[in-house]
Amino acid sequence: MSIQTTSRPPVPGAPIVTTGSLPASTKVFKPGIRHPELRVPMREIALHPSAGEPPVTVYDASGPYTDPATEIVIERGLPRHRQAWAEARGDVEVYDGRDVKPEDNGFVSPDRLTPTFPVRHRPLRAKDGKAVTQLAYARAGIITPEMEYVAVRENLGRAQARAVLGRDGEDFGAAIPDHVTPEFVRDEVARGRAIIPANINHPELEPMIIGRNFLVKINANIGNSAVTSSMAEEVEKMVWAIRWGADTVMDLSTGRNIHNIRDWILRNAPIPIGTVPLYQALEKVGGIAEDLTWEVFRDTLIEQAEQGVDYFTIHAGVRLRHVPLTAGRVTGIVSRGGSIMAKWCLHHHRESFLYEHFDEICDICRAYDVSFSLGDGLRPGSIADANDAAQFAELETLGELTQLAWGKDCQVMIEGPGHVPMHKIKANMDKQLATCGEAPFYTLGPLTTDIAPGYDHITSGIGAAMIGWFGCAMLCYVTPKEHLGLPDRSDVKTGVITYRIAAHAADLAKGHPAARLRDDALSRARFEFRWEDQFNLSLDPDTARSFHDETLPKEAHKTAHFCSMCGPKFCSMRISHDIRAEAQKEGMAAMAQKFREGGKLYVPLGEAR
Amino acid sequence: MSIQTTSRPPVPGAPIVTTGSLPASTKVFKPGIRHPELRVPMREIALHPSAGEPPVTVYDASGPYTDPATEIVIERGLPRHRQAWAEARGDVEVYDGRDVKPEDNGFVSPDRLTPTFPVRHRPLRAKDGKAVTQLAYARAGIITPEMEYVAVRENLGRAQARAVLGRDGEDFGAAIPDHVTPEFVRDEVARGRAIIPANINHPELEPMIIGRNFLVKINANIGNSAVTSSMAEEVEKMVWAIRWGADTVMDLSTGRNIHNIRDWILRNAPIPIGTVPLYQALEKVGGIAEDLTWEVFRDTLIEQAEQGVDYFTIHAGVRLRHVPLTAGRVTGIVSRGGSIMAKWCLHHHRESFLYEHFDEICDICRAYDVSFSLGDGLRPGSIADANDAAQFAELETLGELTQLAWGKDCQVMIEGPGHVPMHKIKANMDKQLATCGEAPFYTLGPLTTDIAPGYDHITSGIGAAMIGWFGCAMLCYVTPKEHLGLPDRSDVKTGVITYRIAAHAADLAKGHPAARLRDDALSRARFEFRWEDQFNLSLDPDTARSFHDETLPKEAHKTAHFCSMCGPKFCSMRISHDIRAEAQKEGMAAMAQKFREGGKLYVPLGEAR
Repeated sequence: MSIQTTSRPPVPGAPIVTTGSLPASTKVFKPGIRHPELRVPMREIALHPSAGEPPVTVYDASGPYTDPATEIVIERGLPRHRQAWAEARGDVEVYDGRDVKPEDNGFVSPDRLTPTFPVRHRPLRAKDGKAVTQLAYARAGIITPEMEYVAVRENLGRAQARAVLGRDGEDFGAAIPDHVTPEFVRDEVARGRAIIPANINHPELEPMIIGRNFLVKINANIGNSAVTSSMAEEVEKMVWAIRWGADTVMDLSTGRNIHNIRDWILRNAPIPIGTVPLYQALEKVGGIAEDLTWEVFRDTLIEQAEQGVDYFTIHAGVRLRHVPLTAGRVTGIVSRGGSIMAKWCLHHHRESFLYEHFDEICDICRAYDVSFSLGDGLRPGSIADANDAAQFAELETLGELTQLAWGKDCQVMIEGPGHVPMHKIKANMDKQLATCGEAPFYTLGPLTTDIAPGYDHITSGIGAAMIGWFGCAMLCYVTPKEHLGLPDRSDVKTGVITYRIAAHAADLAKGHPAARLRDDALSRARFEFRWEDQFNLSLDPDTARSFHDETLPKEAHKTAHFCSMCGPKFCSMRISHDIRAEAQKEGMAAMAQKFREGGKLYVPLGEAR
Repeated sequence: MSIQTTSRPPVPGAPIVTTGSLPASTKVFKPGIRHPELRVPMREIALHPSAGEPPVTVYDASGPYTDPATEIVIERGLPRHRQAWAEARGDVEVYDGRDVKPEDNGFVSPDRLTPTFPVRHRPLRAKDGKAVTQLAYARAGIITPEMEYVAVRENLGRAQARAVLGRDGEDFGAAIPDHVTPEFVRDEVARGRAIIPANINHPELEPMIIGRNFLVKINANIGNSAVTSSMAEEVEKMVWAIRWGADTVMDLSTGRNIHNIRDWILRNAPIPIGTVPLYQALEKVGGIAEDLTWEVFRDTLIEQAEQGVDYFTIHAGVRLRHVPLTAGRVTGIVSRGGSIMAKWCLHHHRESFLYEHFDEICDICRAYDVSFSLGDGLRPGSIADANDAAQFAELETLGELTQLAWGKDCQVMIEGPGHVPMHKIKANMDKQLATCGEAPFYTLGPLTTDIAPGYDHITSGIGAAMIGWFGCAMLCYVTPKEHLGLPDRSDVKTGVITYRIAAHAADLAKGHPAARLRDDALSRARFEFRWEDQFNLSLDPDTARSFHDETLPKEAHKTAHFCSMCGPKFCSMRISHDIRAEAQKEGMAAMAQKFREGGKLYVPLGEAR
């Protein structure tokens, strides 16, 4: 196994990131049919020869960092393979783009400025007010390379024929197909039930899809704050988060250097990057919420759209009239964006400029294909505030805004939950589906209790698994540091693995046709004492192996037919093998028949007494 | 704050255990009304004076170890306060008890023998075949001290009047009262819907109750194996597990020295101790399953009943006819007890001696009040095997055995789950309630996916929270080491905290009348930047504090109106306070009215476009 890092820090202060394959894993690439040039990455996990099984193919969001065949040069950025796709459509133009201004980096002094990303690319935008969104193409009946890419990706290498396994699950009215075709993807995108966040200025992207009828996705938040952390740390957090399975990453930086940090992240991101543009806009006005203006915000949207941000959280659902609904709450407004907008609205006694200018925001998103993540500025921050009038009033507004965005051919997902006890989770999902026309739901957790700071990845992993099962399309992770501090690299990994568990548990429960293949392969490995296979098939092979080795470190124990938990005599699996062997001698079916008939073989309970 | 340990190891090799209060916590004792001599422990967590709130009272299973007023002397054992209760009933006799035999400690050589517990107490047993079980008393209309004790305990110090808060939850047909009375406890025990595991030979016990209409409980497993760990470690694991909230502890030791280790544990255990007597019986016959006999097993039951074990896992549901049903499974039989019994049945081609002699087992349990935990020897060990014919055939048998045990006045709970995907969890609960006459369900997890060894506390915490909500009375924890090795002290804590989260999330969702008090108190502390209160009210104050201090260690930051996550400018809670202050100037209600009327205060969306 090989965790490596890029060897030389070429630009002073440039990030050193984690590279190298995961154990026993090979990155493979599948072509498209309509677009044979596509190279859709998957990870094949090889099994021990004694298994007599083919490799297990799993979804792979980790990008070129886990591909030993790709040289990673952070200061150059990843290959820009989507550039040709956008240009081929003939509806975009290259232009000079906006100049970087001092406020973009929070007026940071030159000595503290994060270095500019070494390569500058001229941005693309739509020609003549054209819509260059995946939604527009889908509605026009066009199957883009992006659509075929995600179709291939979602099938995890299954051929159509193999997909017809028994379906076992409860999908609450979703429509998960046995096999995902490019046409199905086009249809789901056209209906607004799924989005492919893919800014035309993010050609490094490996496209992915977010929607209720696809695999459940997870997002990891990174970002510095005024108090701590640097660009190099954030780039490595991004690479580290996708290594363990984050499907998208939100850069929530709020300190200085936001523009430059984001450039380093985007140019090296194979996954969609989301932001909350309001954070940067607030930095531009010195952190005074009431000084925010539409002009500053608009300028920030264009700045970020040109850089290639794939989705924007826009808190346009926080309307002036909603703010008083939060007055009686235990924890008020806990969304940063929500509280900023509420403060602005109250101070000016005006409707939110996001709501008033939503139409213009749509025009910008339409010109670059930035997807909307309609923000839940009034999400509940405590069990006491769950499902209250403020939360649901905002959700109604988000439903209204969804229709407006769709009217402009913009892709939309809806943000939700926060703190919600288990019995109130399904109501959230049902209401969102009904109110927002089945636009994908993207929820934080929810946290199912408030009493475990330090373990909120777990309080929220419970809620996340459930809402994913009920139909939520993407789960925003929560790390152990939630409510307490900024997550470090270790917290990021814990958050990602926890949410991969939640997403996978949801896929299983929904009856996704391929989800159980990995569980079954791992369980067979477990039953056959193929320890190495068990580690390699797990979400975190390094941790599984190290836990095992704490008590049984020797190589010989990797083939032992027991572990330190029960020891050899009490190993149920070992005994099960004996049972199976014994039964096979006799013929299990014949035995079963004999036992069922009763008779001399056992004493009925009545007689035994 | 004061984590301490017992200072001197008085007997060579005697355990050193963790003592000392939890932060800001005081142990208080509530009396009974019928039994005013009762001293029912609770933990009061003091809040900062600025809160203007009374202390928060929480359930406290940690025993005298967290009471600075009690001197802990491990080699003497805890005070035997229940001895007088049993004797007062006049239906027990003191006798000499069984002699300890070499096989009780696995024929260990003298140099490797765990020291005998220094104090020997003569055991009690029922006189003349009398039933000395809580169930027998309950049926006879007697409210025992144990029953009143748990009634006081379940109310968490709430007076009856305060209990009439709004009830908010979905309890799936449970009957959770606003206030728990001793009469309610008696009634639930009499109906078999709850048990009070309380062996008459475990007078150190602080009684607790397990049932669907009470707070959801959790169990922690400890125990050495042939491969690793010692008596001192196991005693400290027990003390450590209850410090963090384990309600019962199972000693699953399987190596040598089982008898002596159990003595040390029991004499120092304020919580019920459960065992799987089959493990010790197997050691007595040299680990050869087919050499097990009813006589050896019976002798082991009496040995353990005399020591004071509160509940026995009895795998009497693994019948000969069920074994072939496991032949097609991906992971066969994964219960240690289940696999041992299956092997015995197959080898001898006979019905299980546990099933045949169940009546006699009941007689033993009846004479000491050992509760049954009817074992799920055929629980599924993988997602593939969930809810299969073997599992449910055994459950049917457990239902039949429940009736037999009830016929003998024995208390019963039923073991369940294992690996079960989310969509198959509720069927387990519903089937158990229907099949086993509402006897309490006690489940391992369930684990909702197989693919995360190293994180099975999380894969199972998801399932545990859900099944707890659906009606499961006690959740058996799973630690991060599950499938990989024996849990150490740190794994025990992680497992316990994870399961406290699951149990509490379940209580909230069921609408337990007092559950939300702690969430609300913590959330108010969070909103008011009372950091110390937030730490102290959490399930793990030490971890919450240390996570916070990683980035903001100074004392001043404990009153800061922000944290390192967002920094001061982006703190939504800080902004929420500004909003509230601003709104209060104007009168929030008036504002709300004005906003609702619309008019000049905001531009309607239509005009804005």
